[in-house]
Amino acid sequence: MNQYALILAGGSGTRFWPLSRDHRPKQLLNMFGEGTLLRQAIDRLDGLVPRQNIFILTNHLQEAEVRRQAHDIPVDNIISEPVRRDTAPAIALGIGLIKAADPHGVMLVIPSDQLIQDQDSFRTLMKAAMDTAAREKALVTVGIKPTWPCPSYGYIERGKEIHSAPGCSCREVIQFREKPDTATAAAYLSRGNFCWNAGMFVWSIPAVCEQLDKHCPELASFVEHVAESPAPQETIREEFPALTPVSIDFALMEHADRVLNMEATFDWDDVGSWISVANYLETHNKNTTNTDITVQDASGNIVFSQKGDKHVALLGVENLIVVETADAILIADKNKADEIKKIVNQLPDELR
Amino acid sequence: MNQYALILAGGSGTRFWPLSRDHRPKQLLNMFGEGTLLRQAIDRLDGLVPRQNIFILTNHLQEAEVRRQAHDIPVDNIISEPVRRDTAPAIALGIGLIKAADPHGVMLVIPSDQLIQDQDSFRTLMKAAMDTAAREKALVTVGIKPTWPCPSYGYIERGKEIHSAPGCSCREVIQFREKPDTATAAAYLSRGNFCWNAGMFVWSIPAVCEQLDKHCPELASFVEHVAESPAPQETIREEFPALTPVSIDFALMEHADRVLNMEATFDWDDVGSWISVANYLETHNKNTTNTDITVQDASGNIVFSQKGDKHVALLGVENLIVVETADAILIADKNKADEIKKIVNQLPDELR
Repeated sequence: MNQYALILAGGSGTRFWPLSRDHRPKQLLNMFGEGTLLRQAIDRLDGLVPRQNIFILTNHLQEAEVRRQAHDIPVDNIISEPVRRDTAPAIALGIGLIKAADPHGVMLVIPSDQLIQDQDSFRTLMKAAMDTAAREKALVTVGIKPTWPCPSYGYIERGKEIHSAPGCSCREVIQFREKPDTATAAAYLSRGNFCWNAGMFVWSIPAVCEQLDKHCPELASFVEHVAESPAPQETIREEFPALTPVSIDFALMEHADRVLNMEATFDWDDVGSWISVANYLETHNKNTTNTDITVQDASGNIVFSQKGDKHVALLGVENLIVVETADAILIADKNKADEIKKIVNQLPDELR
Repeated sequence: MNQYALILAGGSGTRFWPLSRDHRPKQLLNMFGEGTLLRQAIDRLDGLVPRQNIFILTNHLQEAEVRRQAHDIPVDNIISEPVRRDTAPAIALGIGLIKAADPHGVMLVIPSDQLIQDQDSFRTLMKAAMDTAAREKALVTVGIKPTWPCPSYGYIERGKEIHSAPGCSCREVIQFREKPDTATAAAYLSRGNFCWNAGMFVWSIPAVCEQLDKHCPELASFVEHVAESPAPQETIREEFPALTPVSIDFALMEHADRVLNMEATFDWDDVGSWISVANYLETHNKNTTNTDITVQDASGNIVFSQKGDKHVALLGVENLIVVETADAILIADKNKADEIKKIVNQLPDELR
């Protein structure tokens, strides 16, 4: 059983402006002093998937930086999507490339913009997931145990247990649930058998192709064309733009015959905003920061300096987000962290 | 009648941190895009006092930058005080140097840290003040018509009119009043014959020396030593540190036999804090700034970028002072503008 991974690294992201830009979204930022999220995602596959079996999907704005950061991945394994077409076409593209390499392989699909620190647990669980995917001919999802009734995630309802080993709880999926309202999410949590859908999938090429044939003929045909093409890049450039933009959950997972869920035993953070980043910064006198600060009557502020070399003094201010880069400074009310995109929409092009 | 000027440029200033530093206080900053306050003070004397008759007092921390900015003033006319000794010894030092040049000269004493934009009115009034000082053998002060009951200025009570010409009201001084409380200041304003003491003085050398002989023998003796010394810099270095630190108001003006006051016809601002600076910045969408900003739900903020090349985005924040330099950023509540020195006290030495 050959193992492959498809890393999705084409997401845009304006929530981390001014650190993030069109050409440098969240996954390409080093916010935690341990490499960028993309670099961490690649290194997390050490011992799980050989480098030459890792494929990375990105887009033209970010391609140069992705290639720089993923310098140890074969150049032909990094593909720039001709246009954005949501996750189902993107993942189908990866399936096609991997099928060309090994029509019997098992593959992981993982996002590149999540922070996972417990590498060992990640590898243990993913190994188990790949074994399960190969053995059960099922599409396997990885679920995150929810810690609060978050309304902006998708949820997965878990059913009958398939097998259980220490640190590995595998259950059948009853249903995918799209982003609920907070009350519904709270009900999910109280029922105890719901997890967050973290967008990580594990399957064998035969299993996923069979399901695509059955439920997504357009994508199944695209996968075949890519897999059999003598010039896959060209086939992608020609056919990809015509695919219907739809999420993999909606196109495939919700309809698939057999979907399993494995509960993550590792930590997980999708680092949705500066508020999340603050959890990983040092605390200094009731404020969190990655640079030297001096404070007077100031608390609850998040201060981030791109190079960490700017001294920031805070006087009589509370709950601000302060982010400094070579050309810009953001000062935002912490309660408006999700509205940073409103600012970005107003910016001159060269600052986006 | 030869005309001289003594520019006092030794003041420290922490209220404009991080723009101001120990070696670069308010008077050496270019906050208004029209040169530093010191440079403006020098240029304001054009047509009033020849360059070779201008003397500048500074201190060792700021001397290099003062010399750079005052490149057109004779090098021997720029003196670095060996130690800080308040205004009376500093002014006596200048009187000694000017007396050596011309024992019958008339001199202006002017601070270097005030903003005056109406140059023509300044020159007209100062010319009249020098004529009056020469003719009346009096010590002449320049008063600023108060616009609000400010408790942090000294006040001058004006009495009988000496002469009046269009744009030139000269009265006898009844009394100097030290910094009053706000209620007292309000009473002064309602009485109508009080003005702010702006620390600008005009007198002839014979007149001021006669008054120093009578009321400040220590300073009178120091003036003589400097004036008669073959090596005045050396005399200053030896004798200046021993002088009693005291203000010119307290040492001389309050006791002098004949003090007159001329009311300023020019605009005047002592630029006491970033709040004052904001009056001279451009307004952008309810905020004031010297750089490009983008705002969303933000108002009343003051944004200052040292080089004016940093883009600042404000989201959901109000009444902040944001100041950016190459090595530091200050973010302060506007209501705490006067407490910036508290922050400066906590800073590492290299940032002061």
